[in-house]
Formats: sequence, structure tokens, C-alpha cells
Amino acid sequence: MSYRVDGLQYANWSEKIFRQMREGGLDAVHVTIAYHENFRETVLNIERWNRWFEDHPDLIFQGHAGDDVRRAREEGRTAIFFGAQNPSPVEDDIGLVEVLHKLGLRFMQLSYNNQSLLATGCYEDDDPGITRMGRQVIAEMNRVGMVIDMSHSADRSTMEAAGISQRPIAITHANPHRWHPALRNKRDDVIRAVVASGGMMGFSLYAHHLANGSECTLESFCEMVAMAVERFGIDHFGIGSDLCRDQPDGVVTWMRNGRWSKRTDFGEGSAAAPGFPRQPEWFRDNRDFANIAQGLRKTGFNAAEVDALTGGNWLRFFDQSFGARTT
Amino acid sequence: MSYRVDGLQYANWSEKIFRQMREGGLDAVHVTIAYHENFRETVLNIERWNRWFEDHPDLIFQGHAGDDVRRAREEGRTAIFFGAQNPSPVEDDIGLVEVLHKLGLRFMQLSYNNQSLLATGCYEDDDPGITRMGRQVIAEMNRVGMVIDMSHSADRSTMEAAGISQRPIAITHANPHRWHPALRNKRDDVIRAVVASGGMMGFSLYAHHLANGSECTLESFCEMVAMAVERFGIDHFGIGSDLCRDQPDGVVTWMRNGRWSKRTDFGEGSAAAPGFPRQPEWFRDNRDFANIAQGLRKTGFNAAEVDALTGGNWLRFFDQSFGARTT
Repeated sequence: MSYRVDGLQYANWSEKIFRQMREGGLDAVHVTIAYHENFRETVLNIERWNRWFEDHPDLIFQGHAGDDVRRAREEGRTAIFFGAQNPSPVEDDIGLVEVLHKLGLRFMQLSYNNQSLLATGCYEDDDPGITRMGRQVIAEMNRVGMVIDMSHSADRSTMEAAGISQRPIAITHANPHRWHPALRNKRDDVIRAVVASGGMMGFSLYAHHLANGSECTLESFCEMVAMAVERFGIDHFGIGSDLCRDQPDGVVTWMRNGRWSKRTDFGEGSAAAPGFPRQPEWFRDNRDFANIAQGLRKTGFNAAEVDALTGGNWLRFFDQSFGARTT
Repeated sequence: MSYRVDGLQYANWSEKIFRQMREGGLDAVHVTIAYHENFRETVLNIERWNRWFEDHPDLIFQGHAGDDVRRAREEGRTAIFFGAQNPSPVEDDIGLVEVLHKLGLRFMQLSYNNQSLLATGCYEDDDPGITRMGRQVIAEMNRVGMVIDMSHSADRSTMEAAGISQRPIAITHANPHRWHPALRNKRDDVIRAVVASGGMMGFSLYAHHLANGSECTLESFCEMVAMAVERFGIDHFGIGSDLCRDQPDGVVTWMRNGRWSKRTDFGEGSAAAPGFPRQPEWFRDNRDFANIAQGLRKTGFNAAEVDALTGGNWLRFFDQSFGARTT
């Protein structure tokens, strides 16, 4: 059986996008429900999702475990898994980890670009690794079954998290730094640490993470996948498209600046190009997932390998990761 | 004119304690209104203070500027200045700095033992210095007139804060590490950086910060003051007693653990002695401030020097620090 799973999206959600997910054959999508939101604000976002689940039961439902991906395939719907790109929903309160897991949060980044209470973000000058609170929150996430996502974290913090965590961790959306040396892309040592934890990395389709940006070719992208697979093995990779469909540019300003800054931080953009970058032609939205599968076949992956890369690996990881720790 | 100012207390406030402040001749006390409280919870604590101000106008009133210390002396009352031992009231929102200043917050520590969003605490293994958000919050605190307090911060963060801040910073409650090498006491380099900023350090009477702990003698304490004054000049020191009068031991557990830990962190205490340490005999509560003044005279300070150390220096610092930046 082949499954199609996207390891990260942050769209301006609507029925239109849910229909595009169905057109693209997506069985599951990990959606961001918090960038800088605190606990109460995250609950408000969950309330919005609850309305969407209520209004569009023919298209989507909330996923809690790997089996929900299988159910989604059987029922022709898309299972939506919640994640946070920042530990802001937990605030300074370790007890909120379990509460948020009960509400369905399945991924949480330990930091988003900046220093958090738990770990360092990739935009800080210096990275002291996982903090005192971070060590305890990792143990608590391990206990309840919430995935540690280090996509926007700094290198030392990521490698320490992989070592401290008793369960596999993830980089849900990034590409290898050796292919495109963006600040957000990951060096070999970092990928190796995540892979050694038994973890997963989702390849990003966000233009700032792509060689040649919006002009990146499908061939180049698929060759990058092949290079990563050759170096680290096929079991640890999937897609984490980072699709931000239909978002106004004001949203990328919020993503970068939250409430922490009075000056505008342009992140991966610039004063001249402050908005969302254009998607590559061959991956404009959820309907284009088939292009990636075709590209991977053309690059030389066999059907089983393409299935693993476009969903099977994520599904195995979901099966392993979302339940309470039994040992 | 001689003034008596305490640079930090965190009591279980009551009419009894306000009366003891009057008995001790205290013109002003910087009181902690937040340890781990978020913005809303800090406002609740302010509401409690508003009731105390309303109920005990003969004893206390809220201080906003240095002149309120002079007014307190004239009127025979104690001016209460608000401070936070952690940036938790600001959450992740730089806009709350100005809001909290409007509500009277005049001091804010950039971190409390642990890593914060702004700076590193003295209990972390590694200290990367002031964060991206920290740099901006320092500028905002400088702008509105809120003092950067680094009492519980790590060394590099403290020295960087002193350098980044355009206004004098403070260590409201700690002693020199060379006198008593406690984790919370400050090394010469750190004191030098604070002094170079034009800042202030308040000597602590908390037993864990004292040589010989609860058995510390008044003579030893006053000799420590003399040593610091000789090394760094008299202008930059005052008292920051760290008095936690009438607090049950559960409060020191809250101070150390907040909500960040599921395991008990004993901080400066231990599993065998988890509670508040006993105060030295010569400084049990607010009524004993005269003992310090007498001890300092006996150590060789003249009357003007004792006045500076027991209040005059803090008053000058309050005058400089609590108004909006005019340049």
C-alpha cells in the first residue's frame, strides 16, 4: 500500500485547500497550529480547526495516530495532524505538554529561529544546547508521545536533542546544507544525529530552502533527495513541503517577528523581497505531489522507494511516535 | 539627608510587615511582584498591592520615581517599588515592557536561574549571552526607564547586558563571590561590568549568600562591604536584603521550580534542607536595618558613607533610572 503524507504545511486553510489536498491524494498532512501563539491562543486555533472538521467531514478529520492515515486512505479523506513550530504553546509550564498532547498536538519544535526556554534557534549567534527546562520537556514529550521537531533550531541544540531524546526526533522541513547552504538547511552532522535517533527529515519545497530558489528544477530537487538517501539511507526521509498556500505576506512577517521585535526582521527574505517567495513551477500547491513522485521515479528510485519517500516513512514514524511511551 | 532603601524583598506581605518597615525606618523597598508569573498573573499581584495601598495608606504607597523616596521620608511612610525576578511577565511580547512600566514595574531580571527568552540564568551549564530578543528588550527597557537586573543571571549574559544597555544596570541582591563562593554571588569581572555601566549592586542578607550562612557575623558582613567598596568605589553599592519574611517553605519551592520542572530542584538548598534558611541573628527582619548601619560605622565608614550605602546610592540610582530616556 502506498501512502502520501506531507510532513509540514502552514496554509491559509479553506475548503479550497482541503479539496486540493484530496486532488493531490494526500492521506495525511502535519499542519502548523502555532508559530508564536501562547497556550490560550493555540486553543483558539484548535477551535478553528474543530469548526473545519465539523464543516468538512467529507474532506478532512483530525489524526491522532498512524492508523488514522490508513483510515484516511480507506475513506478518501485527509487526516490532519497538529504541530507547533515553537514551544510557545507550552509557555513556561511543563504540565501543558500533556494537555496539548490530549488536544492532539503531535509535533513541537523546541525553538523557532530565536532562543526559547528549551533550545536555541538557528538565527542566534551562539548555541549553548538544550536548557535545563529543555531536558525535562524532552523527557515529558517522550513520555506522552509528542515528536521533538528541530527544523528551526541551531545545530548544537539539535544534536543534543537527538542524544537526550529516548525516542526518534524529526526535522520536519529542511534540506541538506551541502545542496543549498541556506541558514535553515541542515549540515551532515545534524542530519546524521537525527537519523541516528531513528528519526525523520522532510524535504522542503519552500523556495528559500531550494538551490536556485523559485527556479529550482524538479531534477535538481530529486537529485538532492538521491544524494541524501545515498548518504544516510532511505528510511529516514520524506516530504515536509512547508507549503504556505494562500497566505498574505503579512503572515510571513508574523512568522519572523512574532511579538519579540519592534524592528522588522526579514529572516530568509530581505527588505527588497520581504514576502513569501514564489513556489517552483512544478510544486505550486497540494495538487502537485504527483510531480514529485514522478520526478523521483525518473531519478532512478523504484516504486517501493518512491512510496517510502512520499509517505511510507512518515507513516512508520507516526506509528512509532504518537503513543504514550510503554517502557 | 539620609535615606534608607532596601534593594530587594519578597515577603509574605501583611500589615505586620509594613509596620516593621516603618519601625526599621525604611523609606523605600523594591518588592518582587513576579517570580514566574506571566503577564496576567503579574497583574493579579499588582491588584493585591493596590488593595494593600488602599488599606494601609498610613504605612505604604506605590513609588514610581526617586522623588517618591523623598516624599516617603517627609510623610513617614514607605514607598514600594515593583520589580520582577524573571522576564516572565513580558512573556514573548516586547510591547508588554512599556505596559508594565506604566503599571509601575521599575526593575526586571532578564533571567532567573534558567535560560529565558532574553538571557541565561546562573544555573545553566553554558551561557551564550544576550539573545536576539534580549537585545531588543534591553533597548526598550532603556527607553521607558525599567532597570535591567541581573541578580540571577549567568556571568557572560550579565557582562553583555552591561555593555549593551545604554543606561546603568543593577544586581539588586548578591554578594562578591570572592567573599563567599556561592553560585549566586558575583565574580569581580561581573561586578566590574555593572559598576562600569554606572550601575548598582545590593548586598544580600540571604543566608545562602553569606559566608558561614546563618552564622555569618555582622562584622564579617561589614568587612565584605568594606572590601567591595575598596575594590570598586563606594558609589555603586547598597543593600538588597532578599528578605523573604513570613514565607512558608512552599514558596521557596515555587521560586526554584515554577512550572518548568516535574522533579524538585533544590536550588541553593538541598534535599536535606529544602526550605528557607534561617536569617542571621542581627538581621531577622525589617526592624534590624539599624544594626547594619551601626556595623558599618564600627567597620570604619563615616556617617556620609553609611548613608550612601544604606540608601543614598539607591536613591541616586532611582533618580537616574526610572524616567523615560530623554536623549
